[in-house]
This record gives sequence, structure tokens and C-alpha cells, in this order.
Amino acid sequence: MMIIATPQSMHFADRLPLQSGASLRDYSLSFETYGTLNADKTNAVLICHALNASHHVAGVYAGKEKSEGWWDNMIGPGKAVDTNLFFVIGVNNLGSCFGSTGPMHPNPDGPAGSGKLYGADFPVVTVEDWVNAQARLLDGLGIQTLAAVLGGSLGGMQALSWTLQYPSRVRHAVVVASAPNLTAENIAFNEVARRAITTDPDFHGGHFYERGVVPKRGLRIARMIGHITYLSDDVMNEKFGRRLRAVVKDGELGSYLYSTLEAEFQIESYLRYQGDKFAEYFDANTYLLITRALDYFDPARSYGGDLSQALARATAKFLLVSFTTDWRFSPKRSREIVKALLVNRRDVSYAEIDAPHGHDAFLLDDARYMSVMRSYFDSISKEVKA
Amino acid sequence: MMIIATPQSMHFADRLPLQSGASLRDYSLSFETYGTLNADKTNAVLICHALNASHHVAGVYAGKEKSEGWWDNMIGPGKAVDTNLFFVIGVNNLGSCFGSTGPMHPNPDGPAGSGKLYGADFPVVTVEDWVNAQARLLDGLGIQTLAAVLGGSLGGMQALSWTLQYPSRVRHAVVVASAPNLTAENIAFNEVARRAITTDPDFHGGHFYERGVVPKRGLRIARMIGHITYLSDDVMNEKFGRRLRAVVKDGELGSYLYSTLEAEFQIESYLRYQGDKFAEYFDANTYLLITRALDYFDPARSYGGDLSQALARATAKFLLVSFTTDWRFSPKRSREIVKALLVNRRDVSYAEIDAPHGHDAFLLDDARYMSVMRSYFDSISKEVKA
Repeated sequence: MMIIATPQSMHFADRLPLQSGASLRDYSLSFETYGTLNADKTNAVLICHALNASHHVAGVYAGKEKSEGWWDNMIGPGKAVDTNLFFVIGVNNLGSCFGSTGPMHPNPDGPAGSGKLYGADFPVVTVEDWVNAQARLLDGLGIQTLAAVLGGSLGGMQALSWTLQYPSRVRHAVVVASAPNLTAENIAFNEVARRAITTDPDFHGGHFYERGVVPKRGLRIARMIGHITYLSDDVMNEKFGRRLRAVVKDGELGSYLYSTLEAEFQIESYLRYQGDKFAEYFDANTYLLITRALDYFDPARSYGGDLSQALARATAKFLLVSFTTDWRFSPKRSREIVKALLVNRRDVSYAEIDAPHGHDAFLLDDARYMSVMRSYFDSISKEVKA
Repeated sequence: MMIIATPQSMHFADRLPLQSGASLRDYSLSFETYGTLNADKTNAVLICHALNASHHVAGVYAGKEKSEGWWDNMIGPGKAVDTNLFFVIGVNNLGSCFGSTGPMHPNPDGPAGSGKLYGADFPVVTVEDWVNAQARLLDGLGIQTLAAVLGGSLGGMQALSWTLQYPSRVRHAVVVASAPNLTAENIAFNEVARRAITTDPDFHGGHFYERGVVPKRGLRIARMIGHITYLSDDVMNEKFGRRLRAVVKDGELGSYLYSTLEAEFQIESYLRYQGDKFAEYFDANTYLLITRALDYFDPARSYGGDLSQALARATAKFLLVSFTTDWRFSPKRSREIVKALLVNRRDVSYAEIDAPHGHDAFLLDDARYMSVMRSYFDSISKEVKA
């Protein structure tokens, strides 16, 4: 049975104070829910998204067969996170371009009646800010405690942050392919992508909407860089290797074009295609905001870098999952979190999945990965009598 | 004693046929020499350069103390490659922007008398083409056989190619931090850098000289990407970590700026600085040409991917050196060359240096690395009675 998903929206009139000192008011959060909240309201699972995703986590939209949610392979009736048992909530974060209030929406604090869009004036939002906004959404839905909060990559950072900001509201945190903060190299890749966007002449300091242009050149480059870091060297070699675009018969040696401008290798046309596609739908200001949220996340920062101290507040039980070929957020980074939790004698399960797909693995079907998730959520369902 | 270097130039009227089918005529190669050619002409060592380097390998220019050649730490009187023993030749490759004929020079095959610059019409040059041009330079210098050809990274590919194109003219090939071809990921990084340049509105299809502009935005991005791949994750963490630009006293916690546009972390300002500097002096067309030469190099290609077969022609003795933290051209790639040579029962030495500096290590001082180079070149000097 396929879920038919229905996007919803909740409006918040009250100001949300942000970590930066700024605040947002009169904002909306887009969300979707799947399954049914039980009478005790103990079976809610919140899904936090990463860079290029949204509240549309599972199911399809009516009449649109190809509109599967981004984690539909894991979440649904009878799936690893079983919506016959759990009430699953997908939420789109502030600053996104997929429905919740973001840079392309009118700024209520702009010049009166101007209808001026936020653009670059949308305040910097952090993982902690997103979690606060998500907590208000749960308040609105009448949910006090989550059976689990689950996220991959940047979503995993939100899941981790939930256990620190609202320890009493989270029973389980499932943190997949994530890290306790970005390394210098991670920040470096984000910075190059941001510079590609902000130096695109069509960026106009972030106020490009009113000019009717989009900094597509920069978005394309940003996405191409991103894609390289999502894949493993191995999977790239297997998928593309040094194969040329020119179609050749078996055994024939394709000729080089000897061009610096044409896409010569398959990996090149793949990256160009991914870049072009992304630039058509993703927002440049959102890209900046989301990569900055990644850069800033660092719960150990206020504890002189001591992650164990930072995680002492967490009372949830944890499942951490990492993937061997993920060089963006390597298993080493997940192990740092595991270690810090163990120092605090927390209940932690950890699975290091031997998968070839790099960081992308967290979104893909892998029998061992899905089996770990299924058995962990099975045990949660028993615990909360879902 | 410091060498005072003197750049020289050699003109070639005859057409150089290129791998692509195109050709170059009336071109010049810039070069420098250090030390003295012995009477038997057996002590010549050719140095091949990588992306961002030139014929200025060692010494300084008269009156310019800070103008050390790019491998001055290794090459000079009493150094690992001792110019008291060897006659060392540095040569700038065709298509470069440091002196030899390149895209910013007049195209002799352009419209008569137009003086039109090559720009994007400069033909694609390959590693093999460069080696052919270098062989003509040696002819001009009256040198039949090289005691050694030495290069790092892309320079190592040239050294390897010398042993295949002119096996009888090379006694020793020293191939440092190199690879038998690029992986899909290597090509991917090159492609993103190229796209940043070619989609810069100031690129004008490669004919930007006549418009008096430079595609600096693209060059900056290209360099930033390059820098990330030259360094190791470890050395970036050690050098920059998550440190902020804001100067803070010991023990104080610097404040985040909460900005998507400002450089917040030290790694960001480092990369921006490197990008800005590069865009001031490097040529965009040269960047495209050199990265394409990297992409295309693949001696095993004509042998169905069988590197052992490809290297069967080589008769030189080899030293290969790789660095443990080099993820651009990892030790694994050097070992592929070693293995293919051993299959052919060639004389191969191999040193895998445990160094933290990533790909950049081949340019840096490292006691073990320098000691390996010194002892290898000592033995060459005895062999050739230098």
C-alpha cells in the first residue's frame, strides 16, 4: 500500500528568537504526517532533513506516481520505520525553498507594506534554531514526547541537537551518516560552493528575485562540488571510470575529442546534468543558509571542544549509523559521538555499514542498513507500545 | 651558494604534430639550466613541472631574493639533486602562461597579419606532446640521453611518458606523487574547476584577452577547489581546524558573525586568499589546457587498460615516491605503476613516505623524502660518472 501524502502548513505568529540574536515572526513550517498518532501520543517519530530535501519524506502525491518522498525506501507501511506503528512527521526547515518560510518569502519586518522579499536579509538559522522551530510544531500537534527523532547527515545533527535542547522530549535519537561538527575540509567545500554562488553576477548580494534572475552558474558549480563529496571514489570509478561519452561498440576504442570545453568523459556530463537540474529548482540563498548551518553546528564548542561534556545533558537512547566509504562524514566522526555518549554511560547502539556508495549511502537501499533500522525501530515500537 | 637563474628561450620553426591531429609552429620553449653539462653529456637531468609551475625550478633571479624556484629545496649545489654533479634543465610546457608559447601569444596560423592571439584556439596539448617538445629542446641543447627525468604529480606523468616515448634516451625516471591516469573523481574535480572558468561571463569562450577582461571569478573557484585536493584532511585540521578569523584571547570563545557572506573560519579566508592570488597571475586558458592534459593521460588506454603491457616499452630504471596522506594521487596509484614495471622485470625502487601534507608533500621539505631522493641521485651520479 502506497501512502498518499498531503503537505500541511502551520503558521507561527510569535517571534522565534534565533541563536544569532535575530528573530523570525509570522513564519510557517511545511510538514507532512504519515500513520496515526496513538491515544497516548507515544508513537511520534520526527524526521529531520539534510541539504536537498524537505518535509516530503514518504509516500507520493495524489496522481503523481513518481513523487516518492526522499526516504520512502525506509519509511512507510511495513517498512523499516513502519507507519502502521508510528506517527511519522516530516518537517521542512526554516530558510528552505520547499515550503517553509525562507528567503524567497516576504519579509514582515521589511519596509511597511513593501512586500519586499527577505533575500539576503533572511537571518542565519542554525541547527539549534531549527530544532526550536520543530519543537513548536510538536507543541502545535499536541505531542510532548517523541518516540524517536531520526535524521541523516545534517538531519543527524538535528537529531543529536534535539537530545541536548529537549532531553526530556526524546526517547530515541537515530543519527545516520553524521558528525559532531564539520572538519576544516568540510567547511572548505562549503565555502567554495558559497563563493561560486555569491560571486555569480546574477546573485546581486542575495537580492536577485526582484531582478528576475537566478545565479544558476553558481548553483551549478555548488551542486557539482557537492556531488563529488557525496559519492565515494570507488563508486565513481565503478559507475563512470574513465569512460567517454562517445558511444562505441564493444572492444572499440572511442576517440578523444581533444576539447577543453566539451564534456569528454561520462563523469563530466553526469556532473553537468546534476548541476543543471539543481539550478532549476534550488534557491541560492537557501544553499548559503543550509551550508552555514552545517558549518556552525558544534555542540562541543561551548565546552572547550569536549564532546563528552557537551553530550552529558542527553538522556535519550541512541542509534548511530555510518558507512565505510563515506569520506564526507566518515565513520570516525560517528565514533566520536559514540565514544562521548559512552563516557556518559548512555545507551548507544552503533552500526558501521560496509557500503560502497559514500555519503549517499544513507539515502539508498542497503540490506544490512535497512535491517539495522528495522530492528531498532521494532524495539522502539515495543517500548512505546505503538 | 645560491644559484642565480637565467631564463632562456629556444625557438622552433618546424611544426610540432600534436596527438589531437592539430600542430603548432613557430613556438618557443622557456627553460633554465643549472650546473654544467659534462664532456660526455651524460649528466643531464630534466625536470618536468605540474600545474602551477614553470621552468624556474631552482635558484633565484638576480636581485630578487624571494624568487626561489619551485623545487629549490631539492635542486641546487649540494642538494638532493646536486647541481655540482648534474646539469639540470627546467622547461616550461607549451600552453603555459609562464613564458613558453601559450594561449596569450599571437597565433601564426590566424588571419594573416592580424596578430590575433590564440585564446581558445590554442590546440589541446597532451603529456605526450609536451614530451615531444621537450625532446626537441634536448636536441637543440645537443643532449641525446638523460641521466634522469624527474617530475611530481603531472610532472611525474611526463617522466613516465618519457620512458615510453623515448626509451633509449632515459636512464632513470623519477616519478613522484603521480598516477598512471586520473580516476573519475580526479576528472570530476578538474571538470568543476573548468566549468567555473568557462561559465564566468568574463571568459568569452576563451577569447577574453581582446576584451581586456579576465575570468577571475572562475579562476578563484578553480584554485580553491585545487587547494582542497592538494592538502590532507589532517593537515587542514591541524593548520586551520574550526578556528575563527576573529582574534580572541587565550581561553576566550570567539563569537560567530552569523553571516553567509563573510569569511567566518580561518580556512575560508585562507582559500579566498589563495584564490585571489592565483587569479592575479594565472591564465584561464592555460588552466583548461593543463587540467585536460591530466585528464587525457592514460598510457594503458591503447592496451585495453593493461598498464603492464603499456609499460613494456620502458627500459629506464625507476624510482617512484608517494605520500601516505595524498588522496589526490594516493600511494595505491603509484603502486599500480610499480607493479606494472615489476611484471616487466624492470629495475624499480619505491618509497612510500609517511607525511601529513597530502599531495603538496612532494613540494615540501621532508627529511625522509629528501634522503630518498639524495641517495637515488647519488647512485645515478656514480653510474653516469657525473
